[in-house]
Parts: sequence; structure tokens; C-alpha cells
Amino acid sequence: MAKPKKQPRPKAETPKGFRDYFGAEVSERAEMLQKIAGVYHRYGFDALESSAVETVEALGKFLPDVDRPNEGVFAWQDEDEKWLALRYDLTAPLARVYAQHRNDLPTPYRRYAMGPVWRNEKPGPGRFRQFYQCDADTVGTASMAADAEICAMLADCLEEVGIPRGDYVVRVNNRKVLNGVLEAIGLSEDLLLNPRPMTVDEAADALYAEMVRRNIEQISRADVLRQIDKFDKVGLEGVKALLTDGREDSSGAFIEGVGLTEDAAERVLLFLTSRGHSNSETLANLRAAVGGSDMGMQGVNELEEIATLLAAQGYGPDRIVIDPSVVRGLGYYTGPVFEAELTFEIFDEKGRKRQFGSVAGGGRYDDLVKRFTGQAVPATGVSIGVDRLLAALHEKGRIGGSVQGPVVVTVMDRDRMADYQKMVGELRAAGIRAEVYLGNPKSFGNQLKYADKRNSPVAVIEGGDEKAKGVVQIKDLILGAQIAENATLEEWKERPSQFEVPRTQLVEKVREILGGQG
Amino acid sequence: MAKPKKQPRPKAETPKGFRDYFGAEVSERAEMLQKIAGVYHRYGFDALESSAVETVEALGKFLPDVDRPNEGVFAWQDEDEKWLALRYDLTAPLARVYAQHRNDLPTPYRRYAMGPVWRNEKPGPGRFRQFYQCDADTVGTASMAADAEICAMLADCLEEVGIPRGDYVVRVNNRKVLNGVLEAIGLSEDLLLNPRPMTVDEAADALYAEMVRRNIEQISRADVLRQIDKFDKVGLEGVKALLTDGREDSSGAFIEGVGLTEDAAERVLLFLTSRGHSNSETLANLRAAVGGSDMGMQGVNELEEIATLLAAQGYGPDRIVIDPSVVRGLGYYTGPVFEAELTFEIFDEKGRKRQFGSVAGGGRYDDLVKRFTGQAVPATGVSIGVDRLLAALHEKGRIGGSVQGPVVVTVMDRDRMADYQKMVGELRAAGIRAEVYLGNPKSFGNQLKYADKRNSPVAVIEGGDEKAKGVVQIKDLILGAQIAENATLEEWKERPSQFEVPRTQLVEKVREILGGQG
Repeated sequence: MAKPKKQPRPKAETPKGFRDYFGAEVSERAEMLQKIAGVYHRYGFDALESSAVETVEALGKFLPDVDRPNEGVFAWQDEDEKWLALRYDLTAPLARVYAQHRNDLPTPYRRYAMGPVWRNEKPGPGRFRQFYQCDADTVGTASMAADAEICAMLADCLEEVGIPRGDYVVRVNNRKVLNGVLEAIGLSEDLLLNPRPMTVDEAADALYAEMVRRNIEQISRADVLRQIDKFDKVGLEGVKALLTDGREDSSGAFIEGVGLTEDAAERVLLFLTSRGHSNSETLANLRAAVGGSDMGMQGVNELEEIATLLAAQGYGPDRIVIDPSVVRGLGYYTGPVFEAELTFEIFDEKGRKRQFGSVAGGGRYDDLVKRFTGQAVPATGVSIGVDRLLAALHEKGRIGGSVQGPVVVTVMDRDRMADYQKMVGELRAAGIRAEVYLGNPKSFGNQLKYADKRNSPVAVIEGGDEKAKGVVQIKDLILGAQIAENATLEEWKERPSQFEVPRTQLVEKVREILGGQG
Repeated sequence: MAKPKKQPRPKAETPKGFRDYFGAEVSERAEMLQKIAGVYHRYGFDALESSAVETVEALGKFLPDVDRPNEGVFAWQDEDEKWLALRYDLTAPLARVYAQHRNDLPTPYRRYAMGPVWRNEKPGPGRFRQFYQCDADTVGTASMAADAEICAMLADCLEEVGIPRGDYVVRVNNRKVLNGVLEAIGLSEDLLLNPRPMTVDEAADALYAEMVRRNIEQISRADVLRQIDKFDKVGLEGVKALLTDGREDSSGAFIEGVGLTEDAAERVLLFLTSRGHSNSETLANLRAAVGGSDMGMQGVNELEEIATLLAAQGYGPDRIVIDPSVVRGLGYYTGPVFEAELTFEIFDEKGRKRQFGSVAGGGRYDDLVKRFTGQAVPATGVSIGVDRLLAALHEKGRIGGSVQGPVVVTVMDRDRMADYQKMVGELRAAGIRAEVYLGNPKSFGNQLKYADKRNSPVAVIEGGDEKAKGVVQIKDLILGAQIAENATLEEWKERPSQFEVPRTQLVEKVREILGGQG
């Protein structure tokens, strides 16, 4: 029979920007998500798992950080020439689901979703093309109670997974306040200020409109927002320069300013620095900053309502605080915005101390369902950065200690595999993670090396002699490793890490050793 | 400012063949998978989550049920013109992962994986293009102990999720036994008999070779396997006809036979019907059926080894049984094959009684890693059909009873939202799922309708009068529904479903009602 043509061997590798997750990486994430799901559930949120694949039409064009209208997603054509794509977040699918099933869903609809999303973007260190999101949203109510609830829930989630109170703060701002400030200094509403889901054509039109606007030298709110976004990086003076005449950046290049008057810029800065010693002080400062703008006053009132509702439930500014310096996402959301920041310090890659920073963000976005149904549906929600939060838990030592492997029953006599299987059967029945060595049993050294690689706490040995005497050898591998590292000769002798016990006491003795390692 | 061009509204729908999962559908699956993961873990298996996206090159062409060489997956080209695709199962990625990371992974490598896979196939009723798989595999050992372990683990998994002993059986067969029978009746090995991962080109070559073979009228083992696969459907006589001269199917069309002699066909049937009253009787029958074939004897010995190992751990034929009539997947695997069947009866869509049937399958496939590394790596594993098993648990009433919604605190006075939030805060702190009604509170009827849609067990009411008196009204919605349905007027009076309690006793009273519904 003819052999098939020899083909070059395929490369065993993930596509660029993708990775695999092993063992504890998987289970630690699953445990964290399960705790968060528990909190979401307790707040009355229902699980939703939408399909990973959506029509490009339904997905729309809504990636806030991607300017290129036709990129950012992994897309292909199906057999009917319809474009399909992998979801890039969990919010766009929620809008589609709500529009599709709105007659069957309760209103308001509280839902949570957790799962991978995909972005066709340039991968980088720690930036992958597939990553997890973990969202909770309330669709169908304009009540500030929904926003307050989400902030409280976010705080509860952080504590539930192991971030202690005092190590985090949820900061709340409101887009309408900034809008009010801009209104007060005479900048009119513009298209990019209020991004909505757009088709590719709409996005192109919007970009064109923006270019036209720039040609006539009108100052765009989008320009102002872009500079404000740099507040965390360049500081107050930096933003002021960028809002007015421009500044030199660290490389010496001159960055042109937006061209606001000194007075107008000061008003923006007043907004950014209006945080006081208490929420009521902050709110008073904000009222001053938005003076004269109805939109701005509405925003301040909304913040006040949120603060009051949270205070009633005992969430004080130590956990959730009104903070106008929250600028992330201000261009995306339409009302309140929230950000959870971890305040404990870590060392960055250059060995400098800095705060851990943001692990979750969200806010109110009122127009997402409208593109499907024509009716505006108010909505608010939060997205927890799963990888960031996992990294934080590692930093805090909450997860990622050495993961205990299974008890390994070694194979001394290949023909007595049934005996060894019986042992692991007994151990498992007692709830102990255990396995028989299934590699080539010839070399006992290899078996112990395997146990080492598996991080096994205990190895069990039963050779012919032991079998005849009705005993087994139990090797405490963790104690053994400690002794090998630290012990004096006396200690070595006094604390044997290998014991002979009657076969009938196998489970008992192993449990004892494992218990001692709790 | 110019408005963007009006676009037609996008349709709010999932792509064809995809669906969304809501509430209990998500959490019931998650709970089931968590239980299974617990068993896998106890057996020493480590979690692996590979990326959903693979290069087409790494994925290969290995879908057993799809003849078309270039279909079956969702694929697209990345920016480097490389073809990428969504994984169609969890085994092909395992082969890639093992080849890629083999120097860091323990050998043998026991891993489990659970997650969605995608198939670009015609969707049908209950057949979706995205569905869950839940696999466990051991890579790097040829030991039958690995196969036995997987069978035992499969039985444990079924019991763990709620299938009682006696309602399932794991049936074990061995591809080598059938190979031995075919060898004994003079059919030589052929290409399709031993499918391996193939590139599209290789598959085309193989198909061509197959066509050549048919032209010269040689009987192919693949032809014989195809007929045997119909055993469950057409029975013994049917298979016999198909193996020899052909038969009329139910529509009256004549199906040509393979052309085996009567004697040869009898030998195949002897194999299919060799199951005896005990494993040892079955093994004796099989030895007769494969008489003269070394390959066949090896297969029988492997089955005996598995049976012995399982018996040593107490897994008798009531749970795991040697059964040569297991034919599913015989064309795919290279050694032992296993299938978990649920034996309790259900009514099919036509109202006829039938056994629930298969929920999991697996076996030994020794060549999967070879295409990457050139070295054969023995492997064996099982895949649990997540949706089938969930359906079985529904049938057994293990899941899917009415899911209890949150306690709903109604809003009688919009200005006292903080009071209502405080109530849900207290309830949640006591571990009770609770929420404030966040829709428009004008109509109290709408609030109760909402509570009904949410399957709420309890509604809490605090109007101005109650507030002044320091009490709340607690409405037992489940008792209320029962009374409304069944009660006489006397019962109605005696068992009020709405109580007034002091505000301070809110949590206590709600807990009491919820407890009574356990």
C-alpha cells in the first residue's frame, strides 16, 4: 500500500499572542471567579453566557481604544458570506442579548458574565489576544441606586477574594460633571464626546466630521478629554500646559496645546482637584466648578445620591469615595464612572515603589441597546480585570503558594499494579489526592523525580519485602526536603522522613502527614 | 453639527447555530463541571486551559465524523496570512500543548480540560456550533493501568454528579480485538483503519488511495467497520446482511453488502456477541473469536488486565464491564475504547421508552503527538458529553427544579431608597440573596410582577405607615401561590401569606420563611 506523501511536521506552538494556562493558573482563576459569582448572585444578578461568536453586525464597532475602524476583532465569513467575529468584550453581547430577549427578561435585568474575550491587537509583554473578563451590569433602569449597588458589590467582591479593607478604594466620578465644566467654559457638545456603538460607515463619517472640525480650528471636547486623560501621567501642571499652549515632553519634543484660555483651563483643573476631605466637601467644590451648567449640577446631584445610598449601607469613603480625579473611561461612559484601585504598594519592574493601581472599572452607558431597537435603554455596569486581580492576589500572598501535588504510590513490582491501584483507591476514598506512578517503573530514581516534579507531599513504597511483612514505607517528601536543606546531623537522625507502617494504617498515616502540613 | 448617516438597524440575534445560556443553565453546568473537576483532581489530574484559537497547521485534520477535508472548523487568516481556527475538540490542542511543553511537563502527564469547542457543521435541533467538552487524558504511558484508571474515574464522576450506581455502566472494548478478528478472516490493514492527524493534503491522498482500492474491488477494513458501526441500529441480522450480500433498508432501498463470505461474517458477529455473564466468560469468548491472531490476543490480554486492575479496586461489572458490542469510536482509537451509558429509561420524543444512552466515551490513541515530534507518544483519555450529562441530570430530577430567585424589597416611597438599600444590605450580610426593585416604582403591581418573574420567594414592603410604626410587611410569595392554587377559604384565613413584623426582625423572619422552603 502506498504511504501518504511525507509532509513537513507542523510546529507545536500557540498562535502569536495566545498562551496556555496550567494547573494552579487555571484553578486559582476558577476559584476567584467563583467567589465573585457568589457575591454577584447574592446581589440578585443572574448568570449569562452568551456565545463566543457574534455577527459583526450585532457586535458593532465599539472598542473604545481602537481607532482603526475595521480592526480589533477576529472575524471571518460564514457560508452565507455573513461576517462573524469573536466577541471583544462582554458588554456588546449583553446589548445584543437584551435586545433579542427583552420580552422574556425581567426589567431591570441584572446579569453577570465571566469568560474569555478576544482582541485582534498587537500582543506585548503580559498583553494577550485572549483574556478573561468578569462583568456585572444592570440594564433597564436610570436609577442611581443601580450605580450605587454596583459600587457596593465591587467593594464586596474585592474583600471576598482576599483584598482586605484599607487595601482598596472604589472611586466614583461622573461624566456629566465634566460635561458641565466644558459647557461652562463654552465648549459645545461634539460627536466624539459621546461615543456610541457605530457601524464602520458611521465611524468613518464621524472621523471625517472631526477632521472638518479641526480644519476650522474649533476646540473639540474630545481634544480636552484626551489631555485630561494624561492627568495621571503628566500631573496638574502638565495637563494645564496641554490644555493651553502646549509643553515639552520628556524626550524634548514639543506637544502642542489645545488652546484653551488660562481661565478655562483653570476651571478644568478646579474640577480635577476638587476632591475634599469628605464627600460633602468634594460635592461642594464640584458645585463651584460646574457653576452655571444644568448638566453639571445634574451630575453633582447624581454623585450625591450615590454617596447617600452608600452611606446608608455603611460604605463610607474608606471604601467608596467621590473622586473627580478618576478620568479613565470618561470618554466612554455617559454618567457615573467608577474605578477600583488597590492602594497597597508594590515594586515595579524597575524596583520603584508604586501603588498596585486599577483592577476594575465601569460606569453608566445609556445608549447601547438603542442601536438594535431604536429605544434608549439605560444601563450601568462594571468589569473586573481578571488577570490584574489575580496578579494582586499573588502580590498579597493570597494565592500562588506552592501547590500541593498528589500522593504518589510508587511501583516496585510491575506485576502488582493491582495492589498499588488498591492503595490509591483507598486514599482517594478518604478524600486524599493520590495516583500510581504510570511511567516506566524500572528506575526508582525516576519515580522520585516524578514525585518531585508533581510537588508530591508523600511517596508510598511497597516492595516485595514490605508486601511479605504486611507493611508499606511512607516517605514524607516535604519534611525530607526541609531536613535536607536545614537540619543538623542530630535532627536528621531524630526526625526520620521515612516511616514503615502496617499496610492497614496507610490512609491514617498519610492523612496525619498531610494534616501536619496544613 | 452634521448627523451621521442613518444606517439600517443591526439584527439582534446570535449567528446561526449559536445560542445563549441563562441563569440556572449556566450555574448548573458550572456546578456539574466543578464536581467532575474535583474527581479529576483527586485522581492526580492537573487542569489545563489551552487557547481557544490554534493554528490550522497545529490543529491538523482530525475530526472523526467529517469527511470533507477542508471543513468542520471556523478558520481565518491572520495578518501574516497564517490560518488560525477555533479548536474543534480538546484532544488536538492537548497534543500540541504536550509537544510544545514536553520538557517541562511530568511524564506521564495527566491533565483535564473543560471548555467550549466550536464546529463549523450544519446545526440542527439540539446540535449547536459551540458546545462544552470535559476531558481527562493521560499522555506518555502505554500502561493499561492508565486506561483502567480512566474508566474508574469516569464511574466516580457519574456518581459524583448524581447518577446513582445501577443507573450507569462503563463498557470497555478493545480495537485490537476487532483488528485481530479482521486479520483472522484475511482482511489486511488499510489506511483508513488507523486514522491519524492528517494535513489536508494527506487526507486527500488517503481518500485517493481509498478510491483506487475500491476500483480493484478489495474489501476494505473501513467498509467492514462502517457496517459494524450500524450494529446498534440494524441489529445482528442487519449487520450480517450488510457484511455479506446487502439488505433492504426501511425505505425499501437496497443497500449493497461488503461482500464478506458467510464464514467471515459469522466470525465478526461472534466478536460482536461475545459478551458473557462474567468478564472471564467474555474474555474466553473473545479468545475464541480472535483465534490465530497475535494482535487479537494482545487486545484480549489488555482487556483482561484492565478488568483485573478494576476488580482490585472494587469496580465490578455492575459498574465497569468488558463488552465487545461497544463499537462507537472503534475506527478512531487504537487500543481500549470505553463508553459510559446511562441505563435508566426515558421516553423519547415519540413517547417510546428507551435507555438514556451514552454520555461519555474515550479510548487509547497512541499517535497524536507523533505528527509534531516524530516520536510516538502513547495516550489514553475520555471525553464527557457535558450537554448530554446535564440532560440526564434533568431527567433524574437532580437539577432543574424551580430555581429560587432573590428576596425583592419593593419601593413604596422613591425618596427612601436608602432605607430599602439598607434592608437588602442586612439580608445579604446574612447570606440571603436580595435586591431592591430598581424599575419605575409607580405601580406596585409591576413590582410584584417583577418579583414573580424573578421567582422571588419573599417580597418586603415598607410604606409610610409601616415606617412610622417601625414595622415591615413580609409577603411569602411561594406560600401565597400555593394557597391561591389549593387552599380552601378556611385555610386561606388560617395561613396568611403576609405578615407584619418589627423592622428589627426583618432578617430573622425572612430566614425563617426561606428555611421552611428547604
